[in-house]
Amino acid sequence: MSAEPALLSLTEVARSISKKELSSREATQSCLERIKQWQPHLNAFMAIEADDALAAADAADAALARGKVSGALHGVPLAHKDMYYDAGKVVTCGSKIRRDFVPATTSTALQRLKDAGTIRLGSLQMVEFAYGPTGHNSHYGAVHNPFALDHITGGSSSGSGSAVAARLTFAALGSDTGGSIRMPAHFCGVTGLKTTYGRISRAGAMPLSQSLDTVGPLARTVEDCALLLGLMAGADPEDPTAIASPIPDYMAATREPMRGLTIGVPTSFYVDDLDPEVARVLDETIATLKREGANVVQVELPDQRQLTAAAQLIVAVEAASFHKRWLIERPQDYGPQVLMRLQNGLAIPGVSYLEALRWRGPALSAHMAATAGVDAVIAPAAPVPAPTIAESDVGNSPDAESVIHRLTRFTRPINYLGLPSLSIPSGFTRNGLPVGMQLIGRSFDEATLLRIGAAFQRVTDFHARVPKLA
Amino acid sequence: MSAEPALLSLTEVARSISKKELSSREATQSCLERIKQWQPHLNAFMAIEADDALAAADAADAALARGKVSGALHGVPLAHKDMYYDAGKVVTCGSKIRRDFVPATTSTALQRLKDAGTIRLGSLQMVEFAYGPTGHNSHYGAVHNPFALDHITGGSSSGSGSAVAARLTFAALGSDTGGSIRMPAHFCGVTGLKTTYGRISRAGAMPLSQSLDTVGPLARTVEDCALLLGLMAGADPEDPTAIASPIPDYMAATREPMRGLTIGVPTSFYVDDLDPEVARVLDETIATLKREGANVVQVELPDQRQLTAAAQLIVAVEAASFHKRWLIERPQDYGPQVLMRLQNGLAIPGVSYLEALRWRGPALSAHMAATAGVDAVIAPAAPVPAPTIAESDVGNSPDAESVIHRLTRFTRPINYLGLPSLSIPSGFTRNGLPVGMQLIGRSFDEATLLRIGAAFQRVTDFHARVPKLA
Repeated sequence: MSAEPALLSLTEVARSISKKELSSREATQSCLERIKQWQPHLNAFMAIEADDALAAADAADAALARGKVSGALHGVPLAHKDMYYDAGKVVTCGSKIRRDFVPATTSTALQRLKDAGTIRLGSLQMVEFAYGPTGHNSHYGAVHNPFALDHITGGSSSGSGSAVAARLTFAALGSDTGGSIRMPAHFCGVTGLKTTYGRISRAGAMPLSQSLDTVGPLARTVEDCALLLGLMAGADPEDPTAIASPIPDYMAATREPMRGLTIGVPTSFYVDDLDPEVARVLDETIATLKREGANVVQVELPDQRQLTAAAQLIVAVEAASFHKRWLIERPQDYGPQVLMRLQNGLAIPGVSYLEALRWRGPALSAHMAATAGVDAVIAPAAPVPAPTIAESDVGNSPDAESVIHRLTRFTRPINYLGLPSLSIPSGFTRNGLPVGMQLIGRSFDEATLLRIGAAFQRVTDFHARVPKLA
Repeated sequence: MSAEPALLSLTEVARSISKKELSSREATQSCLERIKQWQPHLNAFMAIEADDALAAADAADAALARGKVSGALHGVPLAHKDMYYDAGKVVTCGSKIRRDFVPATTSTALQRLKDAGTIRLGSLQMVEFAYGPTGHNSHYGAVHNPFALDHITGGSSSGSGSAVAARLTFAALGSDTGGSIRMPAHFCGVTGLKTTYGRISRAGAMPLSQSLDTVGPLARTVEDCALLLGLMAGADPEDPTAIASPIPDYMAATREPMRGLTIGVPTSFYVDDLDPEVARVLDETIATLKREGANVVQVELPDQRQLTAAAQLIVAVEAASFHKRWLIERPQDYGPQVLMRLQNGLAIPGVSYLEALRWRGPALSAHMAATAGVDAVIAPAAPVPAPTIAESDVGNSPDAESVIHRLTRFTRPINYLGLPSLSIPSGFTRNGLPVGMQLIGRSFDEATLLRIGAAFQRVTDFHARVPKLA
């Protein structure tokens, strides 16, 4: 047994608890100790519920002693982005407006993890209402990157990226509307899975953009993401967009070799204007994929800028629609950047919105044609590693939109297309900042991405590097 | 056999042909003779394809002689609103822009009627792009009401109302987005069924408003509507909004008695500001329903004006979206009223559009609560009988919106709620203009409306009055 249980992967800790090699209390206590040590530096947690977590851990241990196992994650302590409704618990959504909001129901994704036996450590920080890619939050403060405390985590799942990287939680739910899982996964050196639109129910998850929102995990390994996805995927009567398409054995997929798969490298856009260190990591990653037997080919993708523009328009309208009453009644209670972006959304014509929606089908068809015969496309998650908190603190200044746009340039098109994308730790800059690559897949084919990612993680250790407090 | 086959109902002519009491050629010839006589006065047909129709009739007769029956409407000649794609045939959509448009596919609704054995007489006039309630058309001229040639037919299924009333076709497809089946049914004294949103596929039917468009028949009797609905209803892979809910035996429903059913009369809105003759017909209809054993009760409906406003907003945005390219490239090719309305739609914010869509669920719940225990609600199809062509020829004048609004006041709320509504001939004014009442039902419960309507038609003969040329 590891001296520090919190350093285990999710899969490992679940197995250890189920084999009674480790108690839920020990695992929980280990996380709480790291939280106590790191939280003052990271601001990753929104709420820390140590006593309740330990009580739940004891209950899980007692149940296990009686031979009662809830499921695959029996007794595993987790914390999630603070936008997953958990009946009776405050869910702030990173906002002042919902500072005291207590939902009456529990989100489907979270309930399925609870049904598998997880217990609650508390809740994780996030960008206000999930509308921003940096990790700043004018109400609760910025979240810090465990690999360099003066750098951002990326958003909007800022606390999820930070806490998983620092080994404060074994995994965390995030949500990805324009890159909000892949961005913090990339900046914080963890594995993040943006699922196919419709793969996991959004019922009880705070909505930002009904047409683009996806639920997914941030975790320490691809295997952990596979485990979580298998528990959460599938139809849900509470969310008609969650589709009843077959759920493959994702864990089995992670044990398959990479050999025989074809991976496409875009000839443009995703390789343009890259930070030199990101470009180097991309090259090294491609070399590793080849070494592991992947057939790497070039792919000419359709113009990705149009996809970005359409995605931005959709989120602007849908977010402003969800927020309209508050925008009228409580504008002063929003942070300046989120307020500006939501207000901008009020002015967009319905006709443009419908056009952006209607173009999704043809755009997806064009993407599929361009990637025919390719199992996954590789691309950086962002053109740069994590900027500093200071330099990306643009608020509602004239620079805000261009900073936001630069960071989400490589993630938004994938949300528009609804495709799955797995962001995996793929290297570090000379200054020690993580760099993540995304593997973009076919609709509802997360399994192939997990297969490639797991094979990659068997021969690399970028995902295993644990940040240290200075 | 009737001396004039064209005067038979659809059900009767289909039966007569199948029993070889009447040939398809005789039925077709009879329609063509009436078309020749009436068309110069009505302008109901967009295209008359006499030779093709007779050739198809002969083929149907020959097939029947060989014992080959296509289906329930073998050899029955029909014409439809000129917006149902029929592969290889011009489909004008009542427009100059599509004057020469030849689709490559056939609409699902039309294909199902063809599969049942119908043959094509030609196509019927309609309001330009189905966007208007009067029956004026600045490209192809107004359609005239067979009961009073200087009066409108109502729109947008103007030719369908006019041609069915004058017995030029045994029935006709219309479409109802804001009243476009019920309005001409009411003004022209025919039976019109606006189906539940999702009951009949819209694939291959010209779209006006994706959220509100419904396909349905105008016919001479309720029984004929039941026959047509049974042939067209059901799921369609080409239209995901067409739902696979069970399809009752609609013809059997028309043979059930009215006794035992509860019919609600609104306490307000649908009974306010009625033309005195419409008010009289409403009273007489209620008296008939009671006499036939219906339990008539009062119902207090939620505010219907809000439903109308939401429906108008949705159609404005969706129609402008479908038309955007033409609005930019060919504005001069629209009629003035349609152009004005489409252009107005360009300016509506997406947030308002989403609000109008999102409110549908709560509005339907409120309606269901208000009508619990009621099998159908009765209301006039419009507050007035058909105005004259001259007085309703408002073009894009400042009066246009108020005229449009007045005519569609009682129909639009039902489109917003997505409910079925059957408009039945219920009386005549002293000047001989028809008056129609609508029976508004529960979602996917057309059967109950058809049951009430057929029972009503067994004891009334308003639907049987045939207009005469002066």
